[in-house]
Amino acid sequence: NGPLAVMAGLNVLEDEGLALEVGTELKRICGGLGLPYVFKASFDKANRSSIKSYRGPGLEAGLRYLASVKAKLGVPVVTDLHEPFQAEPVAEVADIIQLPAFLVRQTDLVIAVAKAAAKEKALIQAKKAQFMAPWDAKNILTKIAEVAPETGVILCERGVSFGYNNLVVDMLSIPEMKKLGCPVTIDATHAVQLPGADPRTAGASTGGRRDGVSIIAKSAVAAGADGVFLEFHTDPDKALCDGPSCLPLSAASELLTTLKRIHQALNG
Amino acid sequence: NGPLAVMAGLNVLEDEGLALEVGTELKRICGGLGLPYVFKASFDKANRSSIKSYRGPGLEAGLRYLASVKAKLGVPVVTDLHEPFQAEPVAEVADIIQLPAFLVRQTDLVIAVAKAAAKEKALIQAKKAQFMAPWDAKNILTKIAEVAPETGVILCERGVSFGYNNLVVDMLSIPEMKKLGCPVTIDATHAVQLPGADPRTAGASTGGRRDGVSIIAKSAVAAGADGVFLEFHTDPDKALCDGPSCLPLSAASELLTTLKRIHQALNG
Amino acid sequence: NGPLAVMAGLNVLEDEGLALEVGTELKRICGGLGLPYVFKASFDKANRSSIKSYRGPGLEAGLRYLASVKAKLGVPVVTDLHEPFQAEPVAEVADIIQLPAFLVRQTDLVIAVAKAAAKEKALIQAKKAQFMAPWDAKNILTKIAEVAPETGVILCERGVSFGYNNLVVDMLSIPEMKKLGCPVTIDATHAVQLPGADPRTAGASTGGRRDGVSIIAKSAVAAGADGVFLEFHTDPDKALCDGPSCLPLSAASELLTTLKRIHQALNG
Amino acid sequence: NGPLAVMAGLNVLEDEGLALEVGTELKRICGGLGLPYVFKASFDKANRSSIKSYRGPGLEAGLRYLASVKAKLGVPVVTDLHEPFQAEPVAEVADIIQLPAFLVRQTDLVIAVAKAAAKEKALIQAKKAQFMAPWDAKNILTKIAEVAPETGVILCERGVSFGYNNLVVDMLSIPEMKKLGCPVTIDATHAVQLPGADPRTAGASTGGRRDGVSIIAKSAVAAGADGVFLEFHTDPDKALCDGPSCLPLSAASELLTTLKRIHQALNG
Repeated sequence: NGPLAVMAGLNVLEDEGLALEVGTELKRICGGLGLPYVFKASFDKANRSSIKSYRGPGLEAGLRYLASVKAKLGVPVVTDLHEPFQAEPVAEVADIIQLPAFLVRQTDLVIAVAKAAAKEKALIQAKKAQFMAPWDAKNILTKIAEVAPETGVILCERGVSFGYNNLVVDMLSIPEMKKLGCPVTIDATHAVQLPGADPRTAGASTGGRRDGVSIIAKSAVAAGADGVFLEFHTDPDKALCDGPSCLPLSAASELLTTLKRIHQALNG
Repeated sequence: NGPLAVMAGLNVLEDEGLALEVGTELKRICGGLGLPYVFKASFDKANRSSIKSYRGPGLEAGLRYLASVKAKLGVPVVTDLHEPFQAEPVAEVADIIQLPAFLVRQTDLVIAVAKAAAKEKALIQAKKAQFMAPWDAKNILTKIAEVAPETGVILCERGVSFGYNNLVVDMLSIPEMKKLGCPVTIDATHAVQLPGADPRTAGASTGGRRDGVSIIAKSAVAAGADGVFLEFHTDPDKALCDGPSCLPLSAASELLTTLKRIHQALNG
Repeated sequence: NGPLAVMAGLNVLEDEGLALEVGTELKRICGGLGLPYVFKASFDKANRSSIKSYRGPGLEAGLRYLASVKAKLGVPVVTDLHEPFQAEPVAEVADIIQLPAFLVRQTDLVIAVAKAAAKEKALIQAKKAQFMAPWDAKNILTKIAEVAPETGVILCERGVSFGYNNLVVDMLSIPEMKKLGCPVTIDATHAVQLPGADPRTAGASTGGRRDGVSIIAKSAVAAGADGVFLEFHTDPDKALCDGPSCLPLSAASELLTTLKRIHQALNG
Repeated sequence: NGPLAVMAGLNVLEDEGLALEVGTELKRICGGLGLPYVFKASFDKANRSSIKSYRGPGLEAGLRYLASVKAKLGVPVVTDLHEPFQAEPVAEVADIIQLPAFLVRQTDLVIAVAKAAAKEKALIQAKKAQFMAPWDAKNILTKIAEVAPETGVILCERGVSFGYNNLVVDMLSIPEMKKLGCPVTIDATHAVQLPGADPRTAGASTGGRRDGVSIIAKSAVAAGADGVFLEFHTDPDKALCDGPSCLPLSAASELLTTLKRIHQALNG
């Protein structure tokens, strides 16, 4: 049992300066705690509720920012993608390529990611969809193994549909997915989304419950998660995407310290 | 209030002969009942649970089959697509372009479909995702209206996640979506799927409850659905995709007759 | 296949005059339509969200009102109860004794009702709990059959928990419960409740969606329900309990006429 | 923030010897860990799925066993009840009176328990029902406060309906209920039940997932639960009720040690 892994950064890339600021601070905190750190940010939020929402810098500029963070901070990076043609360029930069939850059953995307990951020796992180049972994550692994049997896969829990406009995290899904032979991470940020119901925008973008992020992260680590996935911002209320479920960067140190302690508590 | 619309045909195209056989029979039945008929079939099942499952003839051959059915039978056709680049060629053939449930929040796909539909004077049918509340279907309409304000949109109910490996159809979603100003259809075939749990394949493909199709179709028409979406096969147990939720073609006449009667019962 | 049965009346008894007024009108409508009619009203709402809510006239006065309706109108009556000691006195008046959804797994209550029903030749209507799968209604039937093998049982669908503060009616539960060998009814009134979330009372009593009652009733009849359970009031907004899901008495004729038509449409 | 409280013992009383054996060992373990300990056992399982299932020794003998455990071990006891008339005798023995989840909205039972608890200076533990949102637990508190404003109430999370035959624990419910001003406990044993679906008995009694108990307990403590509720047996596979979700007594020491560590990790 290794240390708790931390994938953390921004929901979406805004500019390179912010990415470096957030990555630098998170690297510093994780370094101090002895936790492996991966910088996370998206270059395109391709499924925003509204067409008017900010989507990010796009593939080209986004990968340039990520490459810069990687080079300047010396940390691995994880990012997500949405179409098969993006797999190759993303794999050239990202150390971990993330399959989005809504798209995790799109065979062409899974195959393209698997091939690109195999070629570039990247890992794949697959988010379990909001409509998927934990045991059915096996089908994702099987698809990947057909074309990239040597490629490592991480499964990520991010909540499951629970009635309308709500998600719930079933903590039993964590050991259930670990039975499939993969490390399992918790995306505590997206798990607290209230899909389609952000009252600030009258329902036109997805809401969140910021206070819930640390609850879900702590619970999931106690349930055996091998890593956490968290989104921060220097000023969450001004974040260009998903502010309601985003944590202030100033809260990172205390939360990560607690998560490390819980992780250690499990192992005696 | 016009007559009940019928979108019916095959889950996935297998060969042109089967498509013509099924389309001919359904056209005959609907004609006899005075119900408008649209032939439905997919050219690619892009999100099968398993990589080994049959996906269909693909874009090019599939559109050729659909064009042939359209020309030979003189009926409109509806089909679905999965990537933005497919929107233009599909719109050249399909009278109704269908956005799949899993992909209905992918902005690029929605925009590409909206533009192509506007250009070719096609309609769009958007399936409400399994993770989406009926009132949040408004976001799909808004996205489409941004680029194709004149294009007609049909919303389709196909069930919502209800625990693991199950869907439920909330009949109240039908009037709820009608409030958004669109016709609403019921996809009774996919609504009875048991996602990820087909016992015939030990969970590697999605199961169904064939007996439930007619129950859901009848209930939804009674709840005010403007149209039904149904999949048939001459031999459902040999269907290459989703056999467990597929009806035998021989059952079409009796079911459609009953649905017409229920639709009439609503209007006195 | 007999005609559609109608259990309808008041949510809770208020005074004898209102009960007679509502019962007289519903008897008249059902008589005109050829539908068997049973008067429904509760004498005690024993599980209101708030202690301050109106509960009803209680056992003694309530049974007196019900006996009066039964005698004056010449119709059978159905009412519910909450404790084992109430079974005998209720069975002396009620033709159908109703087991409430929340209490349907309380063995002592089920047994007491079964014994009293057997003694007085009453029927039992068991509401499937909001936390119960339709196939698990079999356990209720088995418990009753142990002590009252000759007693007829009706199963009633009234919605199932769907996330927080919401219920959904799974129309497939109707044929599923019919497989158990019982007639199945739909309680369309309680199925549209929004548990715990009546905005009029800031969450201290349960809300409803009046417009949904007829949708659920029509859908369920189309799904094969043998009877409907509906609550009316001469002035729903002044009803002392569950007004938000209560229909105005003036709407009864049109709704019941439509339900009869749908029921007939099923049988050709 | 005090130490983690432990309510633990038997699902249902079988004989006095077993109760003493289990209570002695749990008292010893909790004492060693510095955790306050309350012995738990039910005298009547009043809502078993099947009439043939073992229900327990009943009120009189059950209270005698509980009084004996209390006297011989010098520990407080918690037990549940099902009818208003049981409140007074139970309150004479029990230090904590438990309202069962299914019955927590039955006003007469809540009032009877509140009065008896006030008279005997007992606490009340109310289990949030499987069909109840965490914020709606406020209604239970309000009902109790109307008649027993000085009486302490503990709210207990035991899972919420999630589709058919499944429960999920929403860890966010723990801080949500703590906002109501009460301590919150986690019933990890009942939370892993699979309602109505024990394969060992072909669905006639409720199943469980023994491996999940410790996961839920650990997660809930990490989410801020003030206490845990756990059921043990010297030989779970021979337990007369709910064996599938029961832990072996031999596992208690390791689990409670880990839970204490997680609880401490939260507080630095």
